Amino acid sequence: MSFDSTVQAKAIELIKCSYEITGAAGSGHPSSCASLGHLISVLMYQHMRWEPSNPSHPASDRLMLSEGHAVPIVYAACADKGVMIGEDKERWKPMTKADALTLRQIDSRIDGHPNPKLGFPFFDAATGSLGQGLSVAAGIALAAKADGLDKRVFVLIGDGESREGQVWEAADFLRDHDLKAVCPIFNCNQFAQSEEVSKQQSAEVLVKKLEAAGFEVLVIDGHSPSEIRDALNRHAEVHEASDAAANGVAIVAKTEKGWGAASMKGNGHHGQAPKGEALEKVLAELEETGKATGAYALGGLKIPAMSPRKSNQKIDDAPMNFSVALKAFGKESALEQGKMATRNAYGVGLRALGHAKSDLFALDCDVRGSTGSAMFAGDEKVNDRFVECRIAEQNMMSVAAGLSAGGKIPFASTFGKFAVRGYDQIEMAIMSGANMKLVGSHSGATLGADGPSQMGLSDVGWFRGFTGLRNYDVEGKLKAGSGAGMYVLTPSDAYQCYALMREMMAWDGPCYLRTLRPETEFLYGDEDKFTLGGHELLIEGKDLLIAANGYMVHQANKAIEELDDLGIDVGVVDLYSLPFESEALLDYANDCGGNILTIEDNYCGGLGSAVTDLVCQDGGGFTVNQMYVKRMPKSGLSADNVLNYVGLGVDDIVREAKEVMGIED
Amino acid sequence: MSFDSTVQAKAIELIKCSYEITGAAGSGHPSSCASLGHLISVLMYQHMRWEPSNPSHPASDRLMLSEGHAVPIVYAACADKGVMIGEDKERWKPMTKADALTLRQIDSRIDGHPNPKLGFPFFDAATGSLGQGLSVAAGIALAAKADGLDKRVFVLIGDGESREGQVWEAADFLRDHDLKAVCPIFNCNQFAQSEEVSKQQSAEVLVKKLEAAGFEVLVIDGHSPSEIRDALNRHAEVHEASDAAANGVAIVAKTEKGWGAASMKGNGHHGQAPKGEALEKVLAELEETGKATGAYALGGLKIPAMSPRKSNQKIDDAPMNFSVALKAFGKESALEQGKMATRNAYGVGLRALGHAKSDLFALDCDVRGSTGSAMFAGDEKVNDRFVECRIAEQNMMSVAAGLSAGGKIPFASTFGKFAVRGYDQIEMAIMSGANMKLVGSHSGATLGADGPSQMGLSDVGWFRGFTGLRNYDVEGKLKAGSGAGMYVLTPSDAYQCYALMREMMAWDGPCYLRTLRPETEFLYGDEDKFTLGGHELLIEGKDLLIAANGYMVHQANKAIEELDDLGIDVGVVDLYSLPFESEALLDYANDCGGNILTIEDNYCGGLGSAVTDLVCQDGGGFTVNQMYVKRMPKSGLSADNVLNYVGLGVDDIVREAKEVMGIED
Repeated sequence: MSFDSTVQAKAIELIKCSYEITGAAGSGHPSSCASLGHLISVLMYQHMRWEPSNPSHPASDRLMLSEGHAVPIVYAACADKGVMIGEDKERWKPMTKADALTLRQIDSRIDGHPNPKLGFPFFDAATGSLGQGLSVAAGIALAAKADGLDKRVFVLIGDGESREGQVWEAADFLRDHDLKAVCPIFNCNQFAQSEEVSKQQSAEVLVKKLEAAGFEVLVIDGHSPSEIRDALNRHAEVHEASDAAANGVAIVAKTEKGWGAASMKGNGHHGQAPKGEALEKVLAELEETGKATGAYALGGLKIPAMSPRKSNQKIDDAPMNFSVALKAFGKESALEQGKMATRNAYGVGLRALGHAKSDLFALDCDVRGSTGSAMFAGDEKVNDRFVECRIAEQNMMSVAAGLSAGGKIPFASTFGKFAVRGYDQIEMAIMSGANMKLVGSHSGATLGADGPSQMGLSDVGWFRGFTGLRNYDVEGKLKAGSGAGMYVLTPSDAYQCYALMREMMAWDGPCYLRTLRPETEFLYGDEDKFTLGGHELLIEGKDLLIAANGYMVHQANKAIEELDDLGIDVGVVDLYSLPFESEALLDYANDCGGNILTIEDNYCGGLGSAVTDLVCQDGGGFTVNQMYVKRMPKSGLSADNVLNYVGLGVDDIVREAKEVMGIED
Repeated sequence: MSFDSTVQAKAIELIKCSYEITGAAGSGHPSSCASLGHLISVLMYQHMRWEPSNPSHPASDRLMLSEGHAVPIVYAACADKGVMIGEDKERWKPMTKADALTLRQIDSRIDGHPNPKLGFPFFDAATGSLGQGLSVAAGIALAAKADGLDKRVFVLIGDGESREGQVWEAADFLRDHDLKAVCPIFNCNQFAQSEEVSKQQSAEVLVKKLEAAGFEVLVIDGHSPSEIRDALNRHAEVHEASDAAANGVAIVAKTEKGWGAASMKGNGHHGQAPKGEALEKVLAELEETGKATGAYALGGLKIPAMSPRKSNQKIDDAPMNFSVALKAFGKESALEQGKMATRNAYGVGLRALGHAKSDLFALDCDVRGSTGSAMFAGDEKVNDRFVECRIAEQNMMSVAAGLSAGGKIPFASTFGKFAVRGYDQIEMAIMSGANMKLVGSHSGATLGADGPSQMGLSDVGWFRGFTGLRNYDVEGKLKAGSGAGMYVLTPSDAYQCYALMREMMAWDGPCYLRTLRPETEFLYGDEDKFTLGGHELLIEGKDLLIAANGYMVHQANKAIEELDDLGIDVGVVDLYSLPFESEALLDYANDCGGNILTIEDNYCGGLGSAVTDLVCQDGGGFTVNQMYVKRMPKSGLSADNVLNYVGLGVDDIVREAKEVMGIED
């Protein structure tokens, strides 16, 4: 029993440390940590192939703590092993017990929940909003497969957490893509925050559900080191055999919340961090548990070596021009017609970028024919990097985050409306520093016939929140020139769409591209340059500046003729990016007497508010009138039908402009 | 075989109509409709107890078309039966075939996807974003249970759609709450938009998954009328037996996409609406199918009568005052201390409102101890109306929508961060006209120690989008005085929190209440009035108006002393509601020389942009500087730690105010 007692001794040491550091912080979830003591000890000290001196090594096995609140047990192990921490690799230093005791402090890298971006590179993604880890792990495994890396990804999932539907989306995804490198481990400690975990998430029912989803399920005592070891070895065996017909392995570990200390067992101790005498009592109880079970021996555990990293031939060429791509991919007709829907430009662009860069991946949720990504999926030169995620948006967003953690550049597309479903996953990815490119098609009311359940209208307001974030260094100084926390891009034509996709790919950070269902006429060409944060003055004016994007640029162009007849000299600026460069815009507005009319095909809080925020800072007496979707849309046979219905028709623009300029009907 | 041939004849008639009306619209999903022809015929003509003349009757069985894109088959049946349509009950009229042929037209009630609010009262909720129907049905069944109604709810779910994790959250919820009145029917037609449905969603695997989740699963040929009838009868039998130990019944129907017309079968016909000759061909094929299978007889089907509605004693009293509630519920200590966290005020308020109104329901996702709803859950007088939803936010939001459809007033709480997970469900509920009260606790960076994965920061920007929506009548005229599409409420103290909860309950529409983790001092009392759309001038000023809400009001109050010493006369307005009444605010700002400083503890696009939007319309030369969260937060031991980190500390406010007023350090 020397292995069992050695692990037990280590587990008790780590659990004690979890109590000490949460006690010092005054908050945390040490009873959850206690349920994971043995699992973490076997994984991090004996089974996983990794290097404490390089915890983010691409070839190393990965640990995904989906139940992020249990992170102190991992911090305890990392402090013990001297795992490197710090925001910049150049300034990494080995973690100490003293570091662990700074848990949750404002100047500490040891945050309340896992977060690589805050200086803890052992982790691949921020967790803490539950149910996402298995999906992120799937993305990491996909990236590893593409790179010929043999690494495995271990995911610790709480039983209460497994109520999140995303866990089951991820399980299906693992089976669809045969990702046996991922090892889901369910930590069944039976207690959630409020009460006992539902019977629907009992170990017995989880086993049935996993078997139904096509897993070989191993049920173990999560406090038995040898049972843990044997189960992990079985996972390794099945992974190595790489038999596509075989089922993947999942582990259901029966554990005890508050294991080892009677005063922390059972219900009512979730999120409880004992201090003072209560803490002393817990530590003494753990000491006793160790003695009673003979857990004295320490040492004797050894982290195995990583598999060698395979060389990987990468393609990284300059992408072709858009007009070349149209010809190369059989879309010359668009050149003749002089128009194309930006969602189709997305499809063409995705192929072109995929040919140029082997790190690019395209993901979609069973709407590839609508988003344009079907063009990528149908191209044999690139479609080994197409990831069909089926109708499960939450999982897709987290898989994309995992691909990013694995060094890939994921372009994930679905209807803008359906992407809303993955917002929490996107927010966690942004927090993690993921390099994700999100694409919402069918944005705005121009979708027409299918109606509001399919229209992306609430998206701009949400994504704009992140555009206000800036990058700061550890000392709290703004990192100049490091870009915004997010770029929201609404191209008005196909050329601009592709040019922006190139910029998205070149920049290391999150972007959201909004594409349109209807065709729009070409406004630009291959030679036009567009940037993240840029804008384009299309028409100079003297009386009124219309600021618009996407389809609304074309609506503005149509309104202009009539306004011209009325003697109103209107300028038009294509504000395709949020945020945007502000000084030039103020100049254009000043040229127009300070009169601005913003037009956007979404709910309020997007382009219009970005403009008002800007001009109010300046205080120069601008007037901004806004047109946006103020009425819940419905179906209409054409884009014009619906635009007129919601008040964004050409006549509405003319009327509004006249009103702004004080011209009576 | 007379029943079978009668149903088959009806199914063919409805399928033909689906083709005709989608052909007329030029878009739609008739091949999906065809797979449902027999199921809809048996349900709507022979099994469901309902009244075409009163399609939203509370006692009638309900049909939830979760796969909303298949709605033309239901429209076909409703046109045949003359089901009442129209936005106002007073102006309902029976639907005709001519109405059906206006499918998707801008002035038609026959929208592209199901939507009760657009004039189709047969449905309870807008569907079309997939995977939500089963959860809404669960909410309807909960409401019916509370009202002693015997109705059943039939939910048609696509096989591809069943990849959505929410479907499985809902399945677990049905089992947890023993809601056997809900009958999930999986329509396994094997084809999704892009390709064949994943094996993970095959009929065989769905059966295993449903059995694992604790259902009695009946596998039927979805085109066999008698098999459909027998399965539905078995569901009725199990429902009527109401044996808590028995499993609920789920039906897995094997169907054919494009059934009955060879030219529409198999892959590649999703979302295809044949016109002209292609349409003629399909109709002829269906005619042949009818002849070949002997489906001539029409008539002979009869809708059964509804169960009688039981009388239901309702409580609808005036709620007690907050200070009375504090005493009644053992929280007098707050009165002595003069402070209370708004999340706890929420808990107290929920009990008080629950005692006053028997239609109020409280829902939570396993964080009741944190959100405050544990106080309601622990009160025996009301807790039969507490709904523990476990860790599954998507399902909770849709269950709340279902409760609203059942005439209840749901207050659904979780961390503001986790509520993000249910945004698409909330958007669909808003579209449906649901009367939902959403509560996001732990809003802002003041949460402190747990870190950004638990902080509600992106919420305001998203919800604000809906505040710009207004109600219009059928003719497109603004309905004056009908309120905004959404109210976002961030109370600064416990009294205000409770007063706003009373307003939320009294108003028939969606609201989002943001509560705080830390305690805040009392600023108000029982006598203070707050309204949806209101604000409160706390301090009159002459030099600078600070507009803030929630915790930031207290930060502003702290900053004011120092600013006063510097000779800056600062006014403070508590902008607790978005939208807010604008004229008075402009007056206050004018009194302060047009200088405004907004402070909000969330990402950009909230209160600050609401103010800039307003003043820019006025054009009166205001200057607005904004303070919001510009840096991704991290953990810190106190609220102050994190506020200083993100630039919302008291010193930051003083510095910003000085800068605005041109006072150098």
